[in-house]
Amino acid sequence: MRNNQFAIRPTDFETQVKELKEIKFLNKTNEDEISTSKLLKSFLKLSYPEIKSDQAFAHRLHSLQATESSDAFDYLDNNEKVSVLAFYNISLQLLQFNPDVDFNFADPLSAMEKIQLKIADHKSDYFDHDEIISAWYWLLATHTKNGQAFIDRLATQGYFVPFYKDTTKQLLFNGKTLPVFDPHKLIREVVYVESSQDTDHDGKLDLLKAEIIRPAQTENGLKVPVLYTATPYLQGTNDETGLEMTHNVNVPLRHKEPNDTKYEDIEYQTPDEDLPQKRQINGHATEAEEGFIKDLCYSLNDYFLARGFAVVYASGIGTSDSDGMRTTGGPEETTSTTAIIEWLAGNRVAFTNRVDNIEIKAWWSNKSIGMTGRSYLGTLATAAATTGVDGLKTIVTEAAISSWYDYYRDGGLVIAAGGFPGEDADVLAEETFSRRLNPGDFYRVKEDWDQKLMEINHDEDRDTGDYNKFWDARNYHKNFKNVKADVLMVHGLNDWNVKPRNVERLWNGIKNNNIVQKAILHQGQHIYINNFRSIDYTDMINLWLTHELLDVDNQAEKIIPDVVIQDNVKPETWNTFDNWSDPENERKIFNLAPDKLTDKPSDTTVSFKDSLPDDQYWDYSKDNDQWQVDLLKDDGPLNDNRLVFKTDKLEDDLTLDGIPKLDLTVSSNQDLGMLSFQLVDYGKAKRLNVSPSVLTPNGIDETFDWRKDDLREFELGKVTDSKMITKGHINLQNRQNPYKTDELTPDKFIDLSVELQPNFYHLLEGHQLGLIIYATDFGMTVRGNQALKYSFKLNNAKLSIPLHKLN
Amino acid sequence: MRNNQFAIRPTDFETQVKELKEIKFLNKTNEDEISTSKLLKSFLKLSYPEIKSDQAFAHRLHSLQATESSDAFDYLDNNEKVSVLAFYNISLQLLQFNPDVDFNFADPLSAMEKIQLKIADHKSDYFDHDEIISAWYWLLATHTKNGQAFIDRLATQGYFVPFYKDTTKQLLFNGKTLPVFDPHKLIREVVYVESSQDTDHDGKLDLLKAEIIRPAQTENGLKVPVLYTATPYLQGTNDETGLEMTHNVNVPLRHKEPNDTKYEDIEYQTPDEDLPQKRQINGHATEAEEGFIKDLCYSLNDYFLARGFAVVYASGIGTSDSDGMRTTGGPEETTSTTAIIEWLAGNRVAFTNRVDNIEIKAWWSNKSIGMTGRSYLGTLATAAATTGVDGLKTIVTEAAISSWYDYYRDGGLVIAAGGFPGEDADVLAEETFSRRLNPGDFYRVKEDWDQKLMEINHDEDRDTGDYNKFWDARNYHKNFKNVKADVLMVHGLNDWNVKPRNVERLWNGIKNNNIVQKAILHQGQHIYINNFRSIDYTDMINLWLTHELLDVDNQAEKIIPDVVIQDNVKPETWNTFDNWSDPENERKIFNLAPDKLTDKPSDTTVSFKDSLPDDQYWDYSKDNDQWQVDLLKDDGPLNDNRLVFKTDKLEDDLTLDGIPKLDLTVSSNQDLGMLSFQLVDYGKAKRLNVSPSVLTPNGIDETFDWRKDDLREFELGKVTDSKMITKGHINLQNRQNPYKTDELTPDKFIDLSVELQPNFYHLLEGHQLGLIIYATDFGMTVRGNQALKYSFKLNNAKLSIPLHKLN
Repeated sequence: MRNNQFAIRPTDFETQVKELKEIKFLNKTNEDEISTSKLLKSFLKLSYPEIKSDQAFAHRLHSLQATESSDAFDYLDNNEKVSVLAFYNISLQLLQFNPDVDFNFADPLSAMEKIQLKIADHKSDYFDHDEIISAWYWLLATHTKNGQAFIDRLATQGYFVPFYKDTTKQLLFNGKTLPVFDPHKLIREVVYVESSQDTDHDGKLDLLKAEIIRPAQTENGLKVPVLYTATPYLQGTNDETGLEMTHNVNVPLRHKEPNDTKYEDIEYQTPDEDLPQKRQINGHATEAEEGFIKDLCYSLNDYFLARGFAVVYASGIGTSDSDGMRTTGGPEETTSTTAIIEWLAGNRVAFTNRVDNIEIKAWWSNKSIGMTGRSYLGTLATAAATTGVDGLKTIVTEAAISSWYDYYRDGGLVIAAGGFPGEDADVLAEETFSRRLNPGDFYRVKEDWDQKLMEINHDEDRDTGDYNKFWDARNYHKNFKNVKADVLMVHGLNDWNVKPRNVERLWNGIKNNNIVQKAILHQGQHIYINNFRSIDYTDMINLWLTHELLDVDNQAEKIIPDVVIQDNVKPETWNTFDNWSDPENERKIFNLAPDKLTDKPSDTTVSFKDSLPDDQYWDYSKDNDQWQVDLLKDDGPLNDNRLVFKTDKLEDDLTLDGIPKLDLTVSSNQDLGMLSFQLVDYGKAKRLNVSPSVLTPNGIDETFDWRKDDLREFELGKVTDSKMITKGHINLQNRQNPYKTDELTPDKFIDLSVELQPNFYHLLEGHQLGLIIYATDFGMTVRGNQALKYSFKLNNAKLSIPLHKLN
Repeated sequence: MRNNQFAIRPTDFETQVKELKEIKFLNKTNEDEISTSKLLKSFLKLSYPEIKSDQAFAHRLHSLQATESSDAFDYLDNNEKVSVLAFYNISLQLLQFNPDVDFNFADPLSAMEKIQLKIADHKSDYFDHDEIISAWYWLLATHTKNGQAFIDRLATQGYFVPFYKDTTKQLLFNGKTLPVFDPHKLIREVVYVESSQDTDHDGKLDLLKAEIIRPAQTENGLKVPVLYTATPYLQGTNDETGLEMTHNVNVPLRHKEPNDTKYEDIEYQTPDEDLPQKRQINGHATEAEEGFIKDLCYSLNDYFLARGFAVVYASGIGTSDSDGMRTTGGPEETTSTTAIIEWLAGNRVAFTNRVDNIEIKAWWSNKSIGMTGRSYLGTLATAAATTGVDGLKTIVTEAAISSWYDYYRDGGLVIAAGGFPGEDADVLAEETFSRRLNPGDFYRVKEDWDQKLMEINHDEDRDTGDYNKFWDARNYHKNFKNVKADVLMVHGLNDWNVKPRNVERLWNGIKNNNIVQKAILHQGQHIYINNFRSIDYTDMINLWLTHELLDVDNQAEKIIPDVVIQDNVKPETWNTFDNWSDPENERKIFNLAPDKLTDKPSDTTVSFKDSLPDDQYWDYSKDNDQWQVDLLKDDGPLNDNRLVFKTDKLEDDLTLDGIPKLDLTVSSNQDLGMLSFQLVDYGKAKRLNVSPSVLTPNGIDETFDWRKDDLREFELGKVTDSKMITKGHINLQNRQNPYKTDELTPDKFIDLSVELQPNFYHLLEGHQLGLIIYATDFGMTVRGNQALKYSFKLNNAKLSIPLHKLN
């Protein structure tokens, strides 16, 4: 167990006292107490909010051990002074650490150092009066064994319930908001925001449903910041009809006619369109006509609901109870996303229902809006930020797409999101078109929707896999320059659904925007990380949003490291850096020789064939995981279908940091071809599972009597021989760029440069770095099982690995 | 999707109207309405508790389709009468069924029949006035696509929130209680019950902590029934120290000295002990001094908290904040379990704290107590019932142990619970001894506890595996005659943790007690089934407990089938029977011949060896699942280590129902030996996974703004060649019974009769029934890898299969 807390704010003693008074740990009964043991006893008493009598409290103290031979009751009764040792013995028990497992009573401090728990300053073996106050302050900010700050643990025990009735505004401790808002008094309401587009062409501006949850205190005048999650999924999805539309990927790769396409030819331009008139406002209301129930979307949002934030969900055009058509990330969806922000910031109209045109304002909003959410949700946050819309102060994007071409395509190929072969923009549009779930509404737009789907299907162009106007419209990089909201981005280094290129381009794409940007990169796949034990992610976001949306000077910009990256070797280890994937990073160049990555060029020509026996082909088509396992096997069933190049055993550790690049001279035996690449860490080791384990189901409470979440952590799996680090793909006809098609002459060698997906990976001494070159990627490319053969002249073949700069 | 509802109570029209008035669906605004369409509209309006305005409601109606061409708003506006077809089109949408997937608007009734949804009586194609009221009544009782009655779905949408303020007692609908109690006004308190024993021998009667959660209405005089869950786990467990104590199972089987032990020699007798005096009562209180928070134990209990039941948790002797020592199911634990019931029934004293001796009564209890819980929890319920304790009206036991010998032992062998090799009574005692988690308390009893563990370790006697006084003390069969509570038992037919013998012996052991007994047998392992889509388990328990604890004549005894068994072939299919494992069941006898189960005896002698090459032995020791896979493989790596006997392909289906028996003539090449057996279904088929899939995380709400549970279901897995049906084990030296040791002479044949674990299994025509005889069971027995060889004279070898009586 190793604790990593990045959100503890340095705090001077005076402020500590002030905050302890605000949260009532220092109060009239103890503020003049001079005995440190009596002071500690008073703190402990408050730490059992469920205890009402002295006898019951005495029993609690008798249950805690203070030293090797004395329980806490006897110790505090018999001593005026509290030793540092006794304080931390008691504290470790309060923090749920176990003397059988985690520490021993003779020496708690060494365990605390190992676990990385903050030990308060002390001038001697005994805390003096001020020191013990300070020690208690820091204890409240310290995480328990189960991944929550002790103050939050007390909150889940009901500590702040007596505060509810007097709450008039957010209450802070150590720079972060506290759960002093009754989560069962939340107000839930629905409004319909009028957007400035008519995407279903019904002659009326699209109305967009927004679901609002706000603290009851807003009724008394409190203006609250807003966490807005744009989620096309929340109103329901069409899994069955989406699945039916999924494309067959067992189709051949096709030759493409060469062309001279230039970027100008495929650049997306905003069309000029005549818009319907705005609705005439018929009156004003301050109360909504509709509530709603389904609001369980993201436990991080729930956490903030008890802390004085409003949460707003909107699903956008083409979803249940809204107008319009889905576009899978098109500019219309960006406009639909920002419409809600404009309303929240006071710059757009919303109505109480879809008919009466009675306006309702977001009168309870403080006009500081932050966006949260993962995947498509984070993508829409990114999209919104690239408009520079007023009111949007920050986005916290998790596993977000920054260009849809980097989600569904790569290098002139159709490349699936890992786990979803055959999905494409049209399939996702259908899946999220939840107007279908209101059959009465759907009946009226069915034909238009079928038409729209055909249009998306045509424009996404699965035939070529090329970058075109459709994808250019869905490339947010083009507008990175407009981003003025601060950005905190989170991504999994093993996320092969939304591939790491998406976060890397965002990271490096807004470097000159003069905003604050932070990145947290974890070792997981496509997941949320707000419920992990080893990192105080929730606290970090609390510190961040308290700063961004409540305008509190809590040093969040300084305290939160610019880059936090979870170690891929050591469990529960999160390292901090100033930057990642710096284009200036030094590079190590390897030459390719038969079976080897080496420092000597080789004159050999090597080749492999792509096709497989029918049985094997069908097995892999049905079981992509087995294919990946076999691809990495030495002398496995895919031996003839790939080339493997390995370094000698590394003499020193090597840390890859950024975009690996590859130069090749290659030919295909036909006038078409594609290549896939994997970088591999070879070496027997226990490695972190990419899916986290549930340590305790429902182990985290967002506060007292409120939503729960599973406590999770990445754990080491069984010993494995190898692990894929990163991968890449390219169509041999797109060697210049993804929109221009080059000729490919059978058996004629061409030069090719490829960028693999960026990563950050620590390769251990004694391991080998490997490169696998292959063609059909059963999980991502089309699977034509064609009689293709690829040959490589190795004399100029090079792998370039960006190296992490030592700090 | 197939719906199975067993808890719908037949209800006459008059009662329907009365109940609809009580739940306010019939009210002053609509009770005189004669237009069926207006009546339906009024019902629909009430079905959207979140909607406050007519316009917003109109939008909802426009979103529903009533016929192929008309939405619900237009239909109801334009028609006086409501067609059966339109009613059910609308209803299916309300029930969350999807017209793209589950039904079509032209013919909703055929889909309803297929899904098994109740269709109300109608004399024509249009509902008349009374018929539509009745149809609405039945709709409220019908399950949605997501496994909840529509009335419960409405509850989760907030329908009953306005009822909270007027709730004075339980409100019923269709014989079941409704969630009209505010779950955020629950009162949580702790008391300390004084038991009549001193298991830690400290000279004071053991005090036992009980945690109570009761509706606020009890404060106004409402007496409520109590769901009591006795759970040694809830106060925390010692996983690490328990793991350390786990026994090594890679040890040889040993020869046992023959003896003449008779049952009288090992019969457990309650010892005469002098008890400390009862505490002197120093006063009385009606309010507790201590609350508590951690109460998330079983979502079924949470469900009842909103429905006017109290829930009580107690962990018993040797757990955190209680006195005493753990005994792993011993009589002391039964006494500790019933002490709480005695207090709840007014027959025992409890105190507000551990020191002051201020008595507090369960003044809010209606003295009708039911027990719930799975595994150890259900075991303690069974134990409590065998005392005949007053106040205990019913137990709902899930996966409960009925004799600890049947949990940790079998036939003179140490036999692990599946998945836990090396666990034993001492390990479980340590794991549940949560006094350790209060280090201050633990420090004072550490030596006594070490002593107690040594005693359990000695008495459980892993050396012989024999039934002895220790196990006799933990055999609840002996007291089955005392059971006077009604029993509803639930067990997985694939539960190899608590093996099916435990439930079968309970089922057949209380047949003459003149009580009501019910059994639900599912196709899962060691799980709860209160959150499945295909069966209305929660409704059944609601009907059951409403009858048992609220004394409501709701026909629960008649409506709930005596035996419900999930089909092992067809998904989402639950069959009902009058009985199972009837000892009178007809039997089919198979002779054993080489490789065959046949009707012709064979004179052959066959044999197998038990030992394996070292590598293989260690691999299987580490990976028991792989061992099981290989054991079932034809021509697999265990070919020489087992005998396989198979029937020809079955010409007719065969349903095994009860205890398979086996007669063998066997010899061992040494003076020791054990045999294991598996019955196997051979035949390629997709079979139900034994672990349920999560259909929707947090998909079930227990009511509005309250606890959630995952919606789950057993799904078909990939095609497999075979599946184990049941298994059995015996020590060749215990051929008479598990307490008497017989001699075993090397190479001398002995006759042996074995009972395998009972089951209920439907074998399909075309499949083969197989019997595997082997020795070392890597998941359950010791693993000595000894040079043992077993031989069998087949002339008298017989397998006897109990057959299910056709109804």
